[in-house]
Amino acid sequence: MKFIIQRDRLVHSVQEVMKAVTSRTTIPILTGIKINTTTEGITLTGSDSDISIQSFIPAEEDGNEIVEVQASGDIVLNARFFSEIVKKLPMDTVEIEVQTNFQTIIRSGKAEFNLNGLDPEEYPHLPIIEEANLFKLPTDLLKTLIRQTVFAVSTSETRPILTGVNLKVENDELTCIATDSHRLAMRTANIESKINGTYSVVIPGKSLNELSKILDDTNELIEIVITENQVLFKAKNLLFFSRLLEGNYPDTSRLIPTDSKTDVIVKTKELLQAIDRASLLAKENRNNVVKLLTHDGGVIEVSSNTPEVGKVVEEVVAEAIEGEELKISFSAKFVMDALKALEGTDIKISFTGAMRPFVICPLHDDRMLQLILPVRTY
Amino acid sequence: MKFIIQRDRLVHSVQEVMKAVTSRTTIPILTGIKINTTTEGITLTGSDSDISIQSFIPAEEDGNEIVEVQASGDIVLNARFFSEIVKKLPMDTVEIEVQTNFQTIIRSGKAEFNLNGLDPEEYPHLPIIEEANLFKLPTDLLKTLIRQTVFAVSTSETRPILTGVNLKVENDELTCIATDSHRLAMRTANIESKINGTYSVVIPGKSLNELSKILDDTNELIEIVITENQVLFKAKNLLFFSRLLEGNYPDTSRLIPTDSKTDVIVKTKELLQAIDRASLLAKENRNNVVKLLTHDGGVIEVSSNTPEVGKVVEEVVAEAIEGEELKISFSAKFVMDALKALEGTDIKISFTGAMRPFVICPLHDDRMLQLILPVRTY
Repeated sequence: MKFIIQRDRLVHSVQEVMKAVTSRTTIPILTGIKINTTTEGITLTGSDSDISIQSFIPAEEDGNEIVEVQASGDIVLNARFFSEIVKKLPMDTVEIEVQTNFQTIIRSGKAEFNLNGLDPEEYPHLPIIEEANLFKLPTDLLKTLIRQTVFAVSTSETRPILTGVNLKVENDELTCIATDSHRLAMRTANIESKINGTYSVVIPGKSLNELSKILDDTNELIEIVITENQVLFKAKNLLFFSRLLEGNYPDTSRLIPTDSKTDVIVKTKELLQAIDRASLLAKENRNNVVKLLTHDGGVIEVSSNTPEVGKVVEEVVAEAIEGEELKISFSAKFVMDALKALEGTDIKISFTGAMRPFVICPLHDDRMLQLILPVRTY
Repeated sequence: MKFIIQRDRLVHSVQEVMKAVTSRTTIPILTGIKINTTTEGITLTGSDSDISIQSFIPAEEDGNEIVEVQASGDIVLNARFFSEIVKKLPMDTVEIEVQTNFQTIIRSGKAEFNLNGLDPEEYPHLPIIEEANLFKLPTDLLKTLIRQTVFAVSTSETRPILTGVNLKVENDELTCIATDSHRLAMRTANIESKINGTYSVVIPGKSLNELSKILDDTNELIEIVITENQVLFKAKNLLFFSRLLEGNYPDTSRLIPTDSKTDVIVKTKELLQAIDRASLLAKENRNNVVKLLTHDGGVIEVSSNTPEVGKVVEEVVAEAIEGEELKISFSAKFVMDALKALEGTDIKISFTGAMRPFVICPLHDDRMLQLILPVRTY
């Protein structure tokens, strides 16, 4: 194997596949990045066996030569050393050559590295995905869907299925749901689909966080392929594989109240900042609890009280308050997470009493929804 | 005590004095910031008993009212809560009022905090400094002196005196020296002095690091007052006190070789980057050792070798090499720290053999000096 490559392209692809590599693996070969060289170009692969990422660098792009391939072949190089080396090389091009016994020379300018490579035959094969069930959506929309839901997954392993985001595909609509059983985030969007029937899978939250980091903010379509135990995201020159979580995701539709007793419409940013301030003195509590009261005259009072530190109270003028008077307590963190995830300058909060879950939506948009369970204090 | 203040000025001063406050103190009152209010303005104080910082906000500045003082007095407020609160207040002005039992109201817009204050009588008095031995230098020059030396202090408490920087004042010259006994950094600068005779004190490295963080990059003069066990830095509206380390600083002048057997002149950046690259494969070693060889034809070879990972070799073209051929090994980290600390595009390294300390200076400037002990490998 021997090729000369533009250094910035190599650095970029190495950083992409590094997102899947962990030093805490028990499988030594997975501490490496696999490099596959053909006349078409270079393919880099990183994997921690849950997530696998493949980045392709074409030999030629838009008539420009990116890689000069002199001999095809494969090698696996220690990911940590290789990524640090390519970042710090002195020149704009790099020459990589595999000699006997997987010894690999990396040359750039007057710097020459000689790395001990690993046997590429030992590197696990990536799952073979049949592209039968495929749908597409704009990449930036997928990133938004992930951002608006993934924060609500459970971080506890007591119910492993809740550490993932539930993706449901039905009638050319994709719905993402995440819940840790104290709050729930849901978002629906239209897709271009080749799927017949309905699908429901659960993708680990960690996989979606890593995916989101390497996707560009572009409206180019990304393809999503679902199989029995894997999901594959296909972007330009990039394949992202994740295993699926096993088990049935709970039916969350019954949790979402359909009626309400108190409706509040308020500016998202004003409420967010008032809760943020009130939470400053609530941090000593494990639950970070803040109280909300509705007053006559369309005013919301946000407050918290930690006797050993002090108390804080703030009034926020609502756009509208309808229905019964309300006193409710909740986790400031959960409500702030929800408000940050929603779009739009105004939100509507629908309460069904101090002990019942409440729903936060953007005004006039029911395709995004945040549900939060209150905390009993009154 | 009652006053109304511009919020950004309060935030800035709170951040300054917070540099001295630690949550790990065993003295409860020191978890607080002391606020002293007079008709002149507001003085904030933070201290961890090693370092004390006082920041003054004048009631009026350049004809503009910064603080409207309504009642003089003192209070101590929990530093962590107070600093977070003032940062997040909604309006441009803040009203602070102390009521009975040290209860303190912080008002801004429609937000009202009620903090439990502490008795200001319990707050320790700052050292009283006689301003007999005083010298001045530009603030940015002081920051440079700190930056060029403080990294070389010892982090080990086996010889506590080496955790500080030695400041020597003699003949209107200030010399700063730091050493951890494996390397030494020294810098000399001219000062404006009211000092008769010579002074030599040792300031904890930690104090100088904190001082450097809060000083502006300005060429305004800063005053430095030395007493038996304290040093005071006086900038505009800012007092920074630090205790001194007790004991005699070792005489380091004998360590610095006066002759040399091999002199190398090389571009600082080229050598720094080559050593940085060579160190990539040397990180597994505790000492991070890199080798340097001089070759005929004015070429330096920088290399490292970790058999289980690989090896790297790079040639750097020197501006000049004079004297005996040389093979030497050293800590890449120490030499990189030294090269980063020096100014100028070219440096001169003077070697006196593979087992003897070597000296790095900017070309044609002997007021900055970095000395490094080699590592035995050849």
